[in-house]
Order: sequence, then C-alpha cells, then structure tokens
Amino acid sequence: MAVPLHSSPSFDGKIHCDSLWFGADLVTMHDGHYSIIENGTIAVKDGRILWIGPRNQSPDFTAPQRTDFGGGIVTPGFIDCHTHLVFGGDRSAEFEQRLNGVSYAAIAAQGGGILSTVNATRDATQQQLFAAAEFRLRPLLAEGVTCIEIKSGYGLSEESELKMLRVIRELGATQPVEIKSTCLAAHAVPPEFKGKADDYIDLICDSLLPQVASEGLADAVDAFCEHLAFSPQQVERVFNKAAALGLPVKLHAEQLSSLHGSTLAAKHHALSADHLEYATESDVAAMAASGTVAVLLPGAYYLLRETQSPPVELFRHHGVPMALASDANPGTSPALSLRLMLNMACTLFRMTPEEALAGITLNGAKALGLEKTHGTLEADKVADFVHWPLKRPAELVYWLGGQLPCTVVYRGEIRL
Amino acid sequence: MAVPLHSSPSFDGKIHCDSLWFGADLVTMHDGHYSIIENGTIAVKDGRILWIGPRNQSPDFTAPQRTDFGGGIVTPGFIDCHTHLVFGGDRSAEFEQRLNGVSYAAIAAQGGGILSTVNATRDATQQQLFAAAEFRLRPLLAEGVTCIEIKSGYGLSEESELKMLRVIRELGATQPVEIKSTCLAAHAVPPEFKGKADDYIDLICDSLLPQVASEGLADAVDAFCEHLAFSPQQVERVFNKAAALGLPVKLHAEQLSSLHGSTLAAKHHALSADHLEYATESDVAAMAASGTVAVLLPGAYYLLRETQSPPVELFRHHGVPMALASDANPGTSPALSLRLMLNMACTLFRMTPEEALAGITLNGAKALGLEKTHGTLEADKVADFVHWPLKRPAELVYWLGGQLPCTVVYRGEIRL
Repeated sequence: MAVPLHSSPSFDGKIHCDSLWFGADLVTMHDGHYSIIENGTIAVKDGRILWIGPRNQSPDFTAPQRTDFGGGIVTPGFIDCHTHLVFGGDRSAEFEQRLNGVSYAAIAAQGGGILSTVNATRDATQQQLFAAAEFRLRPLLAEGVTCIEIKSGYGLSEESELKMLRVIRELGATQPVEIKSTCLAAHAVPPEFKGKADDYIDLICDSLLPQVASEGLADAVDAFCEHLAFSPQQVERVFNKAAALGLPVKLHAEQLSSLHGSTLAAKHHALSADHLEYATESDVAAMAASGTVAVLLPGAYYLLRETQSPPVELFRHHGVPMALASDANPGTSPALSLRLMLNMACTLFRMTPEEALAGITLNGAKALGLEKTHGTLEADKVADFVHWPLKRPAELVYWLGGQLPCTVVYRGEIRL
Repeated sequence: MAVPLHSSPSFDGKIHCDSLWFGADLVTMHDGHYSIIENGTIAVKDGRILWIGPRNQSPDFTAPQRTDFGGGIVTPGFIDCHTHLVFGGDRSAEFEQRLNGVSYAAIAAQGGGILSTVNATRDATQQQLFAAAEFRLRPLLAEGVTCIEIKSGYGLSEESELKMLRVIRELGATQPVEIKSTCLAAHAVPPEFKGKADDYIDLICDSLLPQVASEGLADAVDAFCEHLAFSPQQVERVFNKAAALGLPVKLHAEQLSSLHGSTLAAKHHALSADHLEYATESDVAAMAASGTVAVLLPGAYYLLRETQSPPVELFRHHGVPMALASDANPGTSPALSLRLMLNMACTLFRMTPEEALAGITLNGAKALGLEKTHGTLEADKVADFVHWPLKRPAELVYWLGGQLPCTVVYRGEIRL
C-alpha cells in the first residue's frame, strides 16, 4: 500500500508528525475489505493520517507522542449513518405495556406510538432535547463511534423541526464525534395535517426547507416513503426542492411494502436508501446504477420480528454498497449499540463479518457522502480509529456484547 | 415491608452500620415483582443488607460511609445462572467461515465445532484458561453481574474436566463476583468414547464425580440430554451418582427435541432445567411440582435462528419460575451481555420486562439454590446491588445496549 508523504523530511532527515501509533494489526477496510496491515504504524499530523503501513517499512518519524498498542487490532472509527437520536419523552412504558398484552390500538388511543414522541419533542426545550440526546450518545461513543448521522422528524412543525436540527448542530459543535444532520420533516403526517398530507409537503417545500438551507441546519434531506407516511409523488416534491437548495437526499424505503421508493431515490441520486426489506431486483439495479448505498437496519427488523429480510444477495450481485446503522429511535429500534448491529446483520441477514464491518466503516461513510475523508485507515483520511483488545476483526461481530475499545482516537487525539 | 433489625441501638440511640445508600428508587424484586421502594435507603453491615425501606421511615443510622445516589434506580446485582465461560481456543473464524458459505460438514471435517473447543481446552494450561475466562468475565461484570455460574464440559476427560473446575474455583477465589461451579462432564461424548457413551458415563460416575466431590470442585452437576449427547437413561445414572455424593443437579433439556429430560430433572428435584424449547405441558407440570426452575437461553435461540420458542405461557400458568442466562459459550451463544438477554427474552419469547428482570435476579438465584441469600433487595440478603442512570426498570430491557451502571456494590462495597 504505497502512500504519499505530504511532509518533507526536516534538516535531520526525519519526518515530523504529531503522533505515532504502532504495535497492533491495522484493519484498514481499504476498498471494503479487511486489508489488514500486520504490526502496522500510523503517523498522524493535523488530525489526519500522514502515513500508514507496516512498521518495518516506516519512514523515520519524529513525534512528540508515541503509543505502543502492545497487540490487538485497530479499526477505523465506527460510523452510524442512520439514527433518530434526538427526541423527547420515553416509550419504555409503552414497550412494557405491549408485552403485558395491551393492544397497539389501545396504546394509540391513549396517545402512544410516534404521536407521543412528537408531542414530547414539541413540548421539550432545546436544552432538554440536547441533554437527553447527549445521554443516549454516550454508549455509542463508548463502543467506538466517531461519526454519526442524526435526523429530525419528531417535530413535524416548522418550529419543532428547526429546534431538533439546532440540537443536532449543537451536539456536533460540542461532542467529540463527527455529526451529520438530516432534515426528516417528511417522517410522518403531523396530526394537524391529517388527511392533508399534500399541504404538509407544501409547508416543507415552501417554507421549512428554505429556512433549513439558509441557516445551514442540515447536510441532507430524508423522507419516509410508505403507505402510512408519504407517497412517491410527495417524496419527489421534497427531493426536487432539496436539489434546488443544493442538499443531497436519502430515503426510508421499502421497509414494510414495495412502493419502489428506492428506485425513486436512485433516480434522484440519493446518497442512500434505507431499510429496503421489500426492495425488488429492479430497485437494486437502479441503486447500483446511481451509486446509492443500501443502508440496512437489523435492529428494527429484529424488534418488529419481521420475516422479510432485505435482498442481500441482490445487493452483492449488483454491487450496491451495504451500510449498517443502529436506527436508534424510541419506537422500532431503541438500539444504542452499533456493534450489536454487526452480529444482527450476520445472524439475521446472513451478511459476512467483513461486509458487516464495511457497513459501519467505508459504506457508512459513503451513505453520508464522507468516503473521501472517512471510513478507512488510509493516508490523507481523518485520523479516527479504535484500538480493540481482540485478535481478529470477526470477533467484533461474533460476540454479543463484549469488550469495549481500549482506546478511541478521534481526529488524531485520544478521546476520553 | 417490615424488616428485622439485628443491630441494637448503641448508647447514643443510633444504629451503627458500615454504609448507607440513599437517593434512588429501589427495585427490590421482592417475590419476583418490581416492588419499588421510592426514594429508599439501604443500610449495609458485614456485607449484608441490615435494613431497607423508604428513606423517610429509616431508623437513625450512623455509618462511616454515606452515598447519595442523586436519582436513578437500584436493582439487585445481576445473576447469570448458566454459562460456559471457561474454554480454550477461538471459534470466531469458524463463525465467519459459516457466513462465507462453508458447510457445517466441511467445518467438522477440518476439526471444527465443539471438538475444536475440546481440543483447545485440553491443550490449554490452567493459567491460559484462567486468563481467557477472566477476560470474558469483564464485560459481564461491567454490566452489573455480581453472581455467575460457570460449567465445565469442554475437557471431557478426567484430567481436563478437573482442570476446568479448578479454573472456575480460581476465578471464584480471585474475582469480585460470586461464582458457582457446575460439573458438566456429560456435555458431549468425547471422541475417544465414540460409540461407547455408556463407558464414558461409567468414567464420570465411578471416577470423576467422586474426585470432584472430594475436592469440593463443584456446587452442582449438569448434563446434556439430547440425541446428539446423552439419553435420559444415561443422564439418570449421572443424577443418581450426584445424589449419592450430595450434589444438586441441573439439566440441558428439550433444546432441539423432546426427550422429556425436564421431567426426569424434575423427578430428581433438579435446581433447573435449561433451554426447554420443546418442553411439553407434562414436563412443565412436573417441573412445577418439584420446584425446578426453567432457565431460558434466548442468545442460543437467536443465534441458531430457532423458530420453536419455549412455552412461556405454560410456565406462567403452572407457576414455574423462569430464569434467564447468557449461556455464554463459543459455539451457539457467544454472548457477553446478560442485559441483552433481557431484551431478547421479551422480543423473542414475549416475556414481560418484569419477568425478564426477575429472570436475572430472584429466579437466577433460585436456579443456583441461592434464593435465601441473593436475588432481591431484602434485609439479611447479601448486599449486591447496582445503581443505574435510568428512571424505570423497563428501560433496562427496552434499550439494546445502553448505559452501563453508575455503581456496582458487591458484598456491601463499591466494585471498581
């Protein structure tokens, strides 16, 4: 793996960097494969990887900080490319009621379901939403997540959607993790627009998205294409507006039925189409042609006890990159472990451990448009990496639960 | 909840204890229910709970150590009543091969499967087995496990079974967790006894178990009753020998087929019958009559993608206590998270969150014969408890992954 050196040697013939890391096997995930460098060295400068390679081929570096890992493996920082981590309220009681035999209808009648999250999110202050999200973020970070996407979508009003997006930006500004913000105003039809979904789409397109764009509150625009949410025609209006505003798009598609939302997403060059249990071969081919990433969400599949799993074999055959994410949300995937998704992707979807790991590194980056700077251990990329007390990357997938990282390096520095 | 006070007030009218804990809601799990004491106090003396009750009804205690939890909930320490945590080797590569399409037959032909674990366990030194098990124990302890059962069963020879049991005892003597040791020599037919399972049972009964008993290496005796392991008749010989030696019994039963091993276990007053996917109503009735606990193992069910789930409704109807455990083992349940089993028990087996929590507290204790001293927060019991940054116990079940404990108290002292 020949890599460029951007620092010239200094007068003493040595190359200066900020930190040197060595003594572990580097699971680089180059090209989505393990591509392991045994006993490797990473030189970091200005928060980026200056050089990476086998230790015995390392140039002569000087560095104020040198870390000998003393064994183990190093992976890229984990990327969770689909979450709903910001929300108000607590639906663990509703979860419990359902298991105690209370029907969905009865729970809905008492104001439960997504509506309860919408009401609690609207009622919460920005500070309250921030504190709750920051609390949920911690276990994800503890497991080695260095980049995460967070969506709005529980406000469903201009004021509340903007509030959620501001919380996401505030998290990004204060927490030691790269955060991408996605506007998912078209997540559900708000109660006050019941039977008038097109009017809500008007509001999103004519007023909300322009504000979001002008304030720089989102990096992408998402929607939920499903019978119980929005039609392909409604989604397309949102996509067209996003394009006019220069924002890339993503889509919740084919989770519960086949509306060919993923084909629509591909037509609009979406970064990703997500869920995809009911995607057809023509959907997959369209995604392959447009370079749209398939984001698979085994946590929701598991929790909803679905039986139709996404067409992994078709994604493989057509060369569609598969990413994995926690889908962290209060209703269908209260998942605060991205690592668990590795095992679920293999156990439930029959992905391979290597595919699963690519799903939360390189392909997670692709789903966020970050593959040039994130997702692998390669020269020039941001120095986000994780040292594990394990011998083989498959152990990250094999164990349910298990060891936390020894060290997480974020932008070239140890994250405490 | 009136509780006895075993310490008389001293001359100053106050009652002396070693430590006082207050400022959280106490999820006592009394009788297997949440039985929450809001804003409770726990007084600890000599590693036991001296008094527990609402803070505003607390006697006047003096204590050198006072801890204000400042909110949150406190549960009993978690009890993992069925694990195979001691073993040699690493089967993550085999897990990966299977997902890459290598057949079970091909893996078996190359020496994989349980045989590879047996060989690696036989080859390992006691020190190596200790180090590997101690490493696996850590994530379980980090999640609040204060009591764990560990089985032998990968040695399958006198020397190697004794070695495993000595490792378990060594773990118990050195690790900050209560460890119960179970002799599972009748786990599988060893390769050198192929076609001569009865001869191996002879060895277990005539030589191994007497040694185990005389050295005090086990607290119980277990066996695997299944077509691919041992018949009910063979298991019964082991049970009779265990009884003669004064050791209680447990049984792996009805995991893959119905041999009525659980009825046999009940007949022998087994502490527990474990797995039980194929238990019938007559099995369940027999267990109820003998007080045998049903230990359910959702990790193995999940990983093997089973579709026949244990008869939870029958256990409820007949009043059989249900415990949950990780079944931590290298083949069918590489699970190092007992907390994840709470969610899996509810999602996959439709247990309620309260039943699930009882399964790793009071009923876990019952499955180990420890219910008089462990499993609930009650006066006189060992002071093992866990402080969580959560508001409701159902949150422990609802989240996949999530917050680690703030504090784990083991035998009355903070475990670091």
